[in-house]
Amino acid sequence: MALKYEILKKVGKSRLGKLHTRHGVVDTPAFMPVGTCGTVKAMMPESVAATGAQILLGNTYHLMLRPGADLVEKMGGLHKFMNWDKPILTDSGGFQVMSLSGLRKLTEEGVTFKSHVDGKKFFLTPEESMKIQHKLDSNITMCLDECTPFPATYEEAKKSMEMSMRWAKRSKEAFVDRDGYGLFGIQQGSVFEDLRQQSADALREIGFDGYAIGGLAVGEGQEEMFKALDYAPGMLPEDKPRYLMGVGRPDDIVGAVLRGVDMFDCVMPTRSGRTAQAFTKYGALNIRNARHKEDDRPLEEGCDCPLCVNYTRAYIHHLQKCNEVLAVMLLTWHNIRYYQRLMQGLRNALANDTLDEYVSEFYKNQAKGDIPEL
Amino acid sequence: MALKYEILKKVGKSRLGKLHTRHGVVDTPAFMPVGTCGTVKAMMPESVAATGAQILLGNTYHLMLRPGADLVEKMGGLHKFMNWDKPILTDSGGFQVMSLSGLRKLTEEGVTFKSHVDGKKFFLTPEESMKIQHKLDSNITMCLDECTPFPATYEEAKKSMEMSMRWAKRSKEAFVDRDGYGLFGIQQGSVFEDLRQQSADALREIGFDGYAIGGLAVGEGQEEMFKALDYAPGMLPEDKPRYLMGVGRPDDIVGAVLRGVDMFDCVMPTRSGRTAQAFTKYGALNIRNARHKEDDRPLEEGCDCPLCVNYTRAYIHHLQKCNEVLAVMLLTWHNIRYYQRLMQGLRNALANDTLDEYVSEFYKNQAKGDIPEL
Repeated sequence: MALKYEILKKVGKSRLGKLHTRHGVVDTPAFMPVGTCGTVKAMMPESVAATGAQILLGNTYHLMLRPGADLVEKMGGLHKFMNWDKPILTDSGGFQVMSLSGLRKLTEEGVTFKSHVDGKKFFLTPEESMKIQHKLDSNITMCLDECTPFPATYEEAKKSMEMSMRWAKRSKEAFVDRDGYGLFGIQQGSVFEDLRQQSADALREIGFDGYAIGGLAVGEGQEEMFKALDYAPGMLPEDKPRYLMGVGRPDDIVGAVLRGVDMFDCVMPTRSGRTAQAFTKYGALNIRNARHKEDDRPLEEGCDCPLCVNYTRAYIHHLQKCNEVLAVMLLTWHNIRYYQRLMQGLRNALANDTLDEYVSEFYKNQAKGDIPEL
Repeated sequence: MALKYEILKKVGKSRLGKLHTRHGVVDTPAFMPVGTCGTVKAMMPESVAATGAQILLGNTYHLMLRPGADLVEKMGGLHKFMNWDKPILTDSGGFQVMSLSGLRKLTEEGVTFKSHVDGKKFFLTPEESMKIQHKLDSNITMCLDECTPFPATYEEAKKSMEMSMRWAKRSKEAFVDRDGYGLFGIQQGSVFEDLRQQSADALREIGFDGYAIGGLAVGEGQEEMFKALDYAPGMLPEDKPRYLMGVGRPDDIVGAVLRGVDMFDCVMPTRSGRTAQAFTKYGALNIRNARHKEDDRPLEEGCDCPLCVNYTRAYIHHLQKCNEVLAVMLLTWHNIRYYQRLMQGLRNALANDTLDEYVSEFYKNQAKGDIPEL
């Protein structure tokens, strides 16, 4: 087995686990900060590690364009290139080809596209995606698939899912198996339960080190997403990690963990750090709001990140108003730390049989909107 | 005496010293990174301290506009507000009023100006500048003066200098003396030796904790500046620190230390960090240059900053091409560390009687342009 996954405990549908890779262990449920171009934006990698993050996501699409997989390989792989010695998961590039590149043409063989950076033409196939992710030295390689757009008719969703399953097979055949490295399949099928089942069956037949749930969080809304998550994770093999791609807000993650998901990634904490939005136990707030101008309190009481320990809201508000880089650095750090505290809280609650209390406290606090005495 | 200055050793005109403030000691010759708006751009304050910097410069003009001196005072002063517990020097605001603000009107009483941020009208006098710097809790307060533009006729330079000396007297009278805090006078007189002497005499008559050399590095060029520095520092009291404002490039600093200057500030290392320029022992280079694309060497061999220890030139080049914030963070850190290593090198050479060797090695290396084997 290329990647070892231990499930330590189950509580309802939720699972407490440990994923072992060549570059270290990932405790699940886990949140992966996104390091699109070989850097988690505005963070030193040692700071990312200090937040408790044990694994990063890298984007194959961005890295194949700049600096190119060959250069990363020549520099000793992505871990060494970006100075991150813990596990890395890379996506397949498919999603960004569809959302970012120009002049796409999708065929059974693969997808032709033009770089959004310089217009250069590329041809991405399952085999090529495996080759690139291998050069990047990714611990968890994702199959190339088509992320079915939402909304899709049943016929569209079926056709798209079936091609993705053929691509999953080609991905598996092209993947070079190594100890401590693994390949994840991606379930598609939009919001159609029987298509999700067909997709899960096809993936299980091929056999993977882990299984992602794709094609959600693409505009269907939390209610629809949770409906799909009521059945989708349970269709996937019980003994392998389940990864919900591109999700999400804190309450999306809590809801998904309750439905049996083990892994998450999202640009939310990092992107929000660049738009002055902060996640706290009392909900999200925007530090540009004038009410913070003379507030000498920390952003979030009890948070142990540098922003909350060393600075007032008034200071961060001031930095934001002056467009200072330090505001982005500190807010990104806080947000990633918030997400890691959330995951640690869920893991502790699973370990201590206090998941119900943890989750009800989570929702109660989130509803408050800000520190109660405000 | 409000600020104690010890001169430990003199070598030619150069001096090795220690300036004692309420917030700690500054070893001289010293370089002060600039923290314009209450942050050294793109740096955590603990990282600034890790470079070896012992004192920062804050800009009164920027801070009086945003967030305002009253708010900073309410938050416990600038040290606490920005989480920097070492010494801070603030300029008087005069220079930025002239270079940044709109609709200025200069009279004997003071200067009226409109904020470059929101057009709000302000009236800055020597008394008001002292009051603001006191509220900021600055360890070293600078007198309000007029930085005589270059070029100036003898008559213009004389008139401007004489008003600055009257303002210096008013600054001294308005300054609230406290232990561990001090006030610096500023010598003007453009490039006219007798005006520099008159200015020095006027300042000495008033009496200050230190003396700045103002009105240089304003377009006259290094040759003219060094000509003025051949005589200007020696006109100032021997037992007090001498501070050359707004200077400069590494070779400006070395030349000025040889001419008896003890303190420096400049935006050069921080601003360059935002434009991909790096200072190294072999001169300055721009990391955007295509020749760095596949270079797996560190930016500067032997440098102990995180950029040089953990990354290749290829990686920093990649970050720059992708406009990643981390490039700015790492280059700024490196540049400040380079400046601090330069100052430490000068201090060590003064202590060890190897100043001649140090300086000739410095010029020899700078002339190489990059790591020799390139």
